[in-house]
Amino acid sequence: MKRSVLVFIFACMAIAVSAQKKSSMLTDSLYSDVLKGHRPYNVYLPKNYQENQDKSYPVLYLLHGLNGDHENWNSRGRVKEVLDYLAASGEIREMIVVFPDADADIPKAKHGYFNYQDWKYEDFFFQEFLPHVEGRYRIIADKGHRAIAGLSMGGGGATAYAQKHPELFCAAYAMSALVDIAPGREPSKDALVNAMRESVKENSCVAYVRNADDQVRQQLRTVKWFVDCGDDDHLLGVNLDFVREMHSARIPLEFRVREGAHVWEYWHSALYICLPFLSRTFDR
Amino acid sequence: MKRSVLVFIFACMAIAVSAQKKSSMLTDSLYSDVLKGHRPYNVYLPKNYQENQDKSYPVLYLLHGLNGDHENWNSRGRVKEVLDYLAASGEIREMIVVFPDADADIPKAKHGYFNYQDWKYEDFFFQEFLPHVEGRYRIIADKGHRAIAGLSMGGGGATAYAQKHPELFCAAYAMSALVDIAPGREPSKDALVNAMRESVKENSCVAYVRNADDQVRQQLRTVKWFVDCGDDDHLLGVNLDFVREMHSARIPLEFRVREGAHVWEYWHSALYICLPFLSRTFDR
Amino acid sequence: MKRSVLVFIFACMAIAVSAQKKSSMLTDSLYSDVLKGHRPYNVYLPKNYQENQDKSYPVLYLLHGLNGDHENWNSRGRVKEVLDYLAASGEIREMIVVFPDADADIPKAKHGYFNYQDWKYEDFFFQEFLPHVEGRYRIIADKGHRAIAGLSMGGGGATAYAQKHPELFCAAYAMSALVDIAPGREPSKDALVNAMRESVKENSCVAYVRNADDQVRQQLRTVKWFVDCGDDDHLLGVNLDFVREMHSARIPLEFRVREGAHVWEYWHSALYICLPFLSRTFDR
Amino acid sequence: MKRSVLVFIFACMAIAVSAQKKSSMLTDSLYSDVLKGHRPYNVYLPKNYQENQDKSYPVLYLLHGLNGDHENWNSRGRVKEVLDYLAASGEIREMIVVFPDADADIPKAKHGYFNYQDWKYEDFFFQEFLPHVEGRYRIIADKGHRAIAGLSMGGGGATAYAQKHPELFCAAYAMSALVDIAPGREPSKDALVNAMRESVKENSCVAYVRNADDQVRQQLRTVKWFVDCGDDDHLLGVNLDFVREMHSARIPLEFRVREGAHVWEYWHSALYICLPFLSRTFDR
Repeated sequence: MKRSVLVFIFACMAIAVSAQKKSSMLTDSLYSDVLKGHRPYNVYLPKNYQENQDKSYPVLYLLHGLNGDHENWNSRGRVKEVLDYLAASGEIREMIVVFPDADADIPKAKHGYFNYQDWKYEDFFFQEFLPHVEGRYRIIADKGHRAIAGLSMGGGGATAYAQKHPELFCAAYAMSALVDIAPGREPSKDALVNAMRESVKENSCVAYVRNADDQVRQQLRTVKWFVDCGDDDHLLGVNLDFVREMHSARIPLEFRVREGAHVWEYWHSALYICLPFLSRTFDR
Repeated sequence: MKRSVLVFIFACMAIAVSAQKKSSMLTDSLYSDVLKGHRPYNVYLPKNYQENQDKSYPVLYLLHGLNGDHENWNSRGRVKEVLDYLAASGEIREMIVVFPDADADIPKAKHGYFNYQDWKYEDFFFQEFLPHVEGRYRIIADKGHRAIAGLSMGGGGATAYAQKHPELFCAAYAMSALVDIAPGREPSKDALVNAMRESVKENSCVAYVRNADDQVRQQLRTVKWFVDCGDDDHLLGVNLDFVREMHSARIPLEFRVREGAHVWEYWHSALYICLPFLSRTFDR
Repeated sequence: MKRSVLVFIFACMAIAVSAQKKSSMLTDSLYSDVLKGHRPYNVYLPKNYQENQDKSYPVLYLLHGLNGDHENWNSRGRVKEVLDYLAASGEIREMIVVFPDADADIPKAKHGYFNYQDWKYEDFFFQEFLPHVEGRYRIIADKGHRAIAGLSMGGGGATAYAQKHPELFCAAYAMSALVDIAPGREPSKDALVNAMRESVKENSCVAYVRNADDQVRQQLRTVKWFVDCGDDDHLLGVNLDFVREMHSARIPLEFRVREGAHVWEYWHSALYICLPFLSRTFDR
Repeated sequence: MKRSVLVFIFACMAIAVSAQKKSSMLTDSLYSDVLKGHRPYNVYLPKNYQENQDKSYPVLYLLHGLNGDHENWNSRGRVKEVLDYLAASGEIREMIVVFPDADADIPKAKHGYFNYQDWKYEDFFFQEFLPHVEGRYRIIADKGHRAIAGLSMGGGGATAYAQKHPELFCAAYAMSALVDIAPGREPSKDALVNAMRESVKENSCVAYVRNADDQVRQQLRTVKWFVDCGDDDHLLGVNLDFVREMHSARIPLEFRVREGAHVWEYWHSALYICLPFLSRTFDR
């Protein structure tokens, strides 16, 4: 009895009450034949998702960085709070956001978003993961309603995925992105680290644009690109390389350099640019 | 050996390395004769605090809300990351920030910042807590270098404390502040809750200004006041009451209503306004 | 010859050249039977308006303040530059913006947006002006694509017009708005000034909400309302009154109080909030 | 009589009245022996400049672009309104701002900020102009209180001046700056245009850093540098070149790429970053 009163008071005093059903952040998983194991992922479902069973939504794939996982964007970047805030203010449309896990936790593992050795993550992503989530949740499964974004290693992954699959994504937003390995870097003594780095180099977003012929460039122009990197970020150099190649190839892109380093405050603030940008990009 | 290599790589790849000594967030405590027990608190020390033993700093007391504690501003509001970010960009001076605990966790307790019954928190704060931290850390202990701020119940506490002690604080920043209990509110059936609410009403910041004579008003004008409340916040009404009284009393104040409700995204973003404002207010 | 070279160089060096046809700001006029005379107005046409003769656009009516006219928003508020900037960045949809003239230039005249004595401006606006411009330019002439906004006296006009005609407007944005005459104001010795003030009082937006019955309130809820006023603005008080009445009547509104006074820097910056907000409000 | 009433009403209704003395923007001039003629300039004096004859101020030299003159920053960039706004809000210190004229109005003239042929503007600036204004107005005439900034050609001028005179300036802020002529540019058929371009190339800010020895680099590190350029600006490329050279030379700089092209909306918004940054840089 006393408790129920307290709960009532808590509700009145501490929270702006809303009659609407809440958004949710779930942890889910699927079994991967490619990777021979279960892969976890998180998914953000907008409010009223359960109540309105007829409605489908655009989707954003939001990729974590090195030492992150599928929960990282929420636990460190508080993406659910930002999504709720921007949806409440009308600055973004309701969307589903999917957070994969690329098993990049040093020292336990150092895998990432690309195929190499026996880690065929890119195959997993396009052959298993994307079809799985788009079948399991009410997602509008076409280019006009699908975007990809990420931070650091995940920013490189997002950009490379959209480069290779411009038919799948309407937009790609790269934050502080590892779009290439800076030239002249000393090799590591650790073979696994070198292998991961090699996979980034082989999938260099910079080289991809440089080597693109006219037909590929034309396809790349069907994606809205966004590059966002802090002026104190150690990855700024490779991002400038990428922007230059995009300019040379006459592929339009949005580009921002804001105050900051390779830190969560940067990525958290980036969400306030990224999410409205992607929301405007989605087809009606 | 392998681990040390990995640590090296992690350091190179994931973090913008800085040669400077880092800031820190500590948990500390003191014994209170007034409250008959140990009271915990957190304290943020700027970078180089340990290295530069001759330097003293301005201080900000940053107060939590209902259901919060001394760790709340960091765990939910990530205040350390914001402080580090703004200090790195030069937008704020280095300062010490102190986070008291007002034991306001419903349903365990519902105490707060004011004296009532056997909870003499205000006595504790001014007679024991403030002298303790200002003796223990290298704080410039004068009005020109001391500010106070808080959210919700802590915003009301910060404002009331600065009203009663304009000789101690150069500035007070109130976020989504419980500066009064809205009139016409139904009493609770819980005596403790009613007692806490009564303590807020008795310390109403609105009434304090309304009842202030010319001399008190003149003293209140020596403090820089800032009121910041979301347009979807259930406490907006009492904040508008407070602003009106301040206008009537011709006491200058800064006032902002921004997009948002009674949520952490609001208070996190408020730090980007609050901290530079206070930093500019501190004496050189 | 030399001149043409110079012009070429100017074009290359000083301007980011665009192949797209430019937007334009025109001055036009109509004869009013109601007001017995020609009334000038300005109109902003988005780029490609001339080239794409099949396309129709949403419309915004943007109202000037006291001592302004139809050119004021452009000459002082540089609204064309802001519209071009936001359209280029994708933050707003292409829209037509119409700038009426309410003949409010003291001391030449002091008319304004309401009917009084022989100045039947409100009749003119709805019976003559709106049908004229919506027939003359390719405007989507329905509630879902029509918004109204204004500053100071024009903010009051915009709000009052949308209150009386919620069937016409999807949104109303009031900047530093004269939504009422503050109570207790001394009457002027000038009969004309008093008459104008009386017209504002008679059309008080505050009283309109206070007196609205359930049916009217329900109609008012079909409009998206936005109130934006500086914390140093002498009209903040009446804006707070308006917000309170809207809260009491449970009519949702967006509300912002930002840093600033009754100055053009405020209204210029308000455009960066107002235009994206209205753009999101327009029906697809 | 009626008029005085109207003026009173105007003052009450349309303007937030302040008892403080206003800031002012003056046009002044000096005779130059170097350039053999009178050179005009504008100067912004903060409020209370006349009233408080004992106070001296930091100074900012703010340089116009091609086709601009000493009035351009105010007529197009409304710098006085921005200065007043930021001073009122406390975000900047009171400062004197000086606007030189580099006679760069095509087709009348195409001179600019550097010495070439018989146009010895740089000599004029340092030997005549700077001593003149710092003797004529109450300026704190030392490095710690002197900054320089500019847009486009003036951004290149500001950067080059601070490079050659790091002993004079504490900070330099370059907006959309012509810090170099992009390589591979076709020569103009107009000899005067080519001469002006050559003067920019000879004073290339990019080459200056590239060629700087350790001693020069060390001096350059005593200046706070800021580069701000729009992502749609045709000069972004040379700005990226400059940033790269600064990184290579390990000279710290602030760097921002924001949304926008080579337009006044960009430079106007840049003032809100530039002026607080410089204000924080000035010595106390």
